Order: sequence, then C-alpha cells, then structure tokens
Amino acid sequence: MKAIVNIHLKEGVLDPQGKAVKHALGSLGFQNVEDVRVGKQIILTLKDDLSADEAKKEVEEMCEKLLANTVIEDYTIEIVQ
Amino acid sequence: MKAIVNIHLKEGVLDPQGKAVKHALGSLGFQNVEDVRVGKQIILTLKDDLSADEAKKEVEEMCEKLLANTVIEDYTIEIVQ
Repeated sequence: MKAIVNIHLKEGVLDPQGKAVKHALGSLGFQNVEDVRVGKQIILTLKDDLSADEAKKEVEEMCEKLLANTVIEDYTIEIVQ
Repeated sequence: MKAIVNIHLKEGVLDPQGKAVKHALGSLGFQNVEDVRVGKQIILTLKDDLSADEAKKEVEEMCEKLLANTVIEDYTIEIVQ
C-alpha cells in the first residue's frame, strides 16, 4: 500500500523558490507562466496489513509530527492500494 | 490553467532524504513504513489562452530544460483546466 503526501506552502506565504523558478523560466523564454509554487511530494510505502482508514490516520499523524510544518504548510494525503 | 509536475528520483537512485525521513519516522514510533521517496511537486499557473496540448508540450520543455535533472530524475505532468 502507498500513501502520496503533497505538501505546499499555505496561500499567502511567500514562496521564494517558486519566484526563482518563475524568473528562470522567463529568462529561458517561457512567457506563458503566471505563477509557480514549489512543494514536496512524499511517497510512503506502508505495510499491507493496514486498512486504508488506518493508513490515512497514521499518515496524518506523520504529517502533523514530522512531514509538514503545519504553521506555514498545508498537506494532502492520497492512499493508493 | 494549471500544470502539476511531479519530479522523483529514478528507481535505483539512492534517496538519502527518503532514508532520513524513514529513520526519523521510525524513531517517532511509526513501525508500518517500508520505504519513503521524497520528491518535488511544482504547480505552474499558465495563461488561459493555451490549449491543453500546447500547455503540455511547453511544460515538457520546461522540465527538460530546467525543472528536472533528467539524468537522475523522472517527471510526470498533469494539466488541470
């Protein structure tokens, strides 16, 4: 079983990395980019004897305790069986 | 229009960041984690006058030129209208 966790800065939090990527794309000639947000995607392989609900609950706890800085970041979790 | 780009190390390429996260999760008491892969998710907001095909082609070019290190990384692109 896999869990896909996407972590991004909250709306309104300045994303310097996104700004830098946008600027670099512009200097490479890409003119159709209005905004860039850079975040993390973490793919966890979990033991198969967990139910989807148990897995979701455990991964939520992982996000709250370690994977995301919940003061400035939001996260989404997708369980893939 | 948005493009969601997921970038991960290729299979077989050592992921020290993933190893570190796995180790940290273990020391926090999470025993159901078999593997962790850490990658990037980049969300691009593109001008609306592009077609989905044009957008996909342009974002592919962005990945090849800047966003991904195609020697060690794979990427996927999802266009969201």
